[in-house]
Amino acid sequence: MIIALLTDFGNKDWFVGTMKAVIMRINPNVKIIDITHEITPQDIRQAGFVLWNAYKYFPEKTIFVCVVDPGVGSERKIIAVETPKYIFIAPDCGLLDFVLSEVQILKAVYVENKNYFLDEISSTFHGRDIFAPVSAHISRGVDLSEMGSEASLKVPEKMFVEVTGLENYEGEVIYIDRFGNLITNLKSPVEVDGEIRVKDLIIEKISRTYSDVKSGQAVALVDSSGLIEIGIRNGNAKEVFKVKEGEKVFLKVRKI
Amino acid sequence: MIIALLTDFGNKDWFVGTMKAVIMRINPNVKIIDITHEITPQDIRQAGFVLWNAYKYFPEKTIFVCVVDPGVGSERKIIAVETPKYIFIAPDCGLLDFVLSEVQILKAVYVENKNYFLDEISSTFHGRDIFAPVSAHISRGVDLSEMGSEASLKVPEKMFVEVTGLENYEGEVIYIDRFGNLITNLKSPVEVDGEIRVKDLIIEKISRTYSDVKSGQAVALVDSSGLIEIGIRNGNAKEVFKVKEGEKVFLKVRKI
Amino acid sequence: MIIALLTDFGNKDWFVGTMKAVIMRINPNVKIIDITHEITPQDIRQAGFVLWNAYKYFPEKTIFVCVVDPGVGSERKIIAVETPKYIFIAPDCGLLDFVLSEVQILKAVYVENKNYFLDEISSTFHGRDIFAPVSAHISRGVDLSEMGSEASLKVPEKMFVEVTGLENYEGEVIYIDRFGNLITNLKSPVEVDGEIRVKDLIIEKISRTYSDVKSGQAVALVDSSGLIEIGIRNGNAKEVFKVKEGEKVFLKVRKI
Repeated sequence: MIIALLTDFGNKDWFVGTMKAVIMRINPNVKIIDITHEITPQDIRQAGFVLWNAYKYFPEKTIFVCVVDPGVGSERKIIAVETPKYIFIAPDCGLLDFVLSEVQILKAVYVENKNYFLDEISSTFHGRDIFAPVSAHISRGVDLSEMGSEASLKVPEKMFVEVTGLENYEGEVIYIDRFGNLITNLKSPVEVDGEIRVKDLIIEKISRTYSDVKSGQAVALVDSSGLIEIGIRNGNAKEVFKVKEGEKVFLKVRKI
Repeated sequence: MIIALLTDFGNKDWFVGTMKAVIMRINPNVKIIDITHEITPQDIRQAGFVLWNAYKYFPEKTIFVCVVDPGVGSERKIIAVETPKYIFIAPDCGLLDFVLSEVQILKAVYVENKNYFLDEISSTFHGRDIFAPVSAHISRGVDLSEMGSEASLKVPEKMFVEVTGLENYEGEVIYIDRFGNLITNLKSPVEVDGEIRVKDLIIEKISRTYSDVKSGQAVALVDSSGLIEIGIRNGNAKEVFKVKEGEKVFLKVRKI
Repeated sequence: MIIALLTDFGNKDWFVGTMKAVIMRINPNVKIIDITHEITPQDIRQAGFVLWNAYKYFPEKTIFVCVVDPGVGSERKIIAVETPKYIFIAPDCGLLDFVLSEVQILKAVYVENKNYFLDEISSTFHGRDIFAPVSAHISRGVDLSEMGSEASLKVPEKMFVEVTGLENYEGEVIYIDRFGNLITNLKSPVEVDGEIRVKDLIIEKISRTYSDVKSGQAVALVDSSGLIEIGIRNGNAKEVFKVKEGEKVFLKVRKI
């Protein structure tokens, strides 16, 4: 059984190690995989996007524990959601929207049953006091229905701009990765071709791979998650083009 | 059996991975949990404080291996300490003071027995050559008394300022976490109320949770480790108030 | 069975977690150890050097998966190499040169057999689509000869400057670690003594350990990998001497 962790806790403090300690105390046989802990503090949308890129590669029955939680200590609720393959636990703040927009929800509950929390609950570290022990108990076979009352989730709106025809599309830079690649919310089949524009940069075609252009040149392609991405071969597009997340991106489709 | 690692080795070089390799070669069945490797280089007090925040959440019998070691290669000694629940291994430089100030010491030895070291001992990487193999052998059941002669440890002085009455207390910022929260060495029950001051900032009350104030406002509360902490809701107090570790903090208790 | 990961993927994005997910789906019993994911993007030589420092401490049969891959999506090949103790998988770009310069190659193949890849192969994330599943299948016992045709590897040239006599040697700073220590490519027995120079800094002797000099003073010594290293006791040589990787280093041997 695997628990996958996704937080904005960073790797500097004791937060992640302590969550793992709590999990191992309850279920010594679980395996823990870190997705990342370097989500920009309190950036729920980024967390949801990162989760979306990763989740479908995990073994079935993986429990995803997502702690990016600006409302910790407030009345915000925590949800646990069962889908055909996985279980997701997160604050009820939209973090799961990217995932839930494309999977079937079998069961969704509010995490309320203090029997599965640590004995003392702080007001600032629910990752340790609630998320970790709850996920560990679920990994030992406790059913979601034990955790609390049924949750009413809003089915999230469409999360991407689907590129399907010979039209003009407007999207935005949704994420910038370590290499400075600008990942857009334009979701597209790999056969697409067209002109893409962000700020003053115009790229005339959509390539298949970085090596279709020369080193140092800008390139657009459909990335490993099916999204249109703008990069520089062997370079850093973020730094060269001074683009931030949220920047508008325009696509004129020529062929699909 | 769990080995928990705490170092200032960072995550950039090969140091941590190599320690894990040595451990796994000696005991393939041990589980390794990282507390952190991002301790400020050679900051023993910070390491001790981070350890103190984390250790009590680990399963019993966990072996804590702490390598923040400015004196590596010198005559400084390495100690291994057994307490009712855990074993701690660290340079004999005060790193364990926070923990040892609140637990019973059952046994303490100097780590001297070269039979449990790697065959070749470098003068710069005892994490790999001594700490890793010694912890792995202990995790396989070797008793501490095998490791070397009895150590005489000074019982550490009180590590925190205990807030117990309607008085004025002076403490300091002892740690600043990833979110920019200013953690003080004022240890306090959650029912405390009063006025807290750091530099020019005066906070009139001690709240229960971040969401007791509006987004962007300063807040003081008792944190998840029982220490008074100053933060900004959905913000970064370190950046806004330009406070560093060591800054004095003044508390006038009104109610307790 | 252990899979050791070495990449330039960083710890911010979902890349490493996703590789681990793919590995665990194919072989749930494998143990994964991170060497590092913070290799400077696309710096093949650095990756090879880091691997060289770490690999020999791993348990026998460890599979090393190295993904620093500027040519991903191009015609560059992936190689898998079996040595008496280990298996290495990497792009065929010289990353393994440091290691292969000192071990026997028992078998070397190009990784070509799509039966061991994920079903869909992106053009940008072969870590997930090829390296991870191939390593997992090998960890389950698939022989390298199943992976593809025999590879013709150029035996790498000597990777270090071997210090063996009373001569003058010219080397360079090959790596700077987290502590700011300047690691050179001068490979030397610990008994060496002499004068070492980098930029305007002259160090008159080669010490045995950092504590041979006073705090704040420059020191040269033979490091834990057998290479001459220049540091500052309890300080950061990189910052003080403004030295970068590639800087020339001159050694006059006085005694050996």
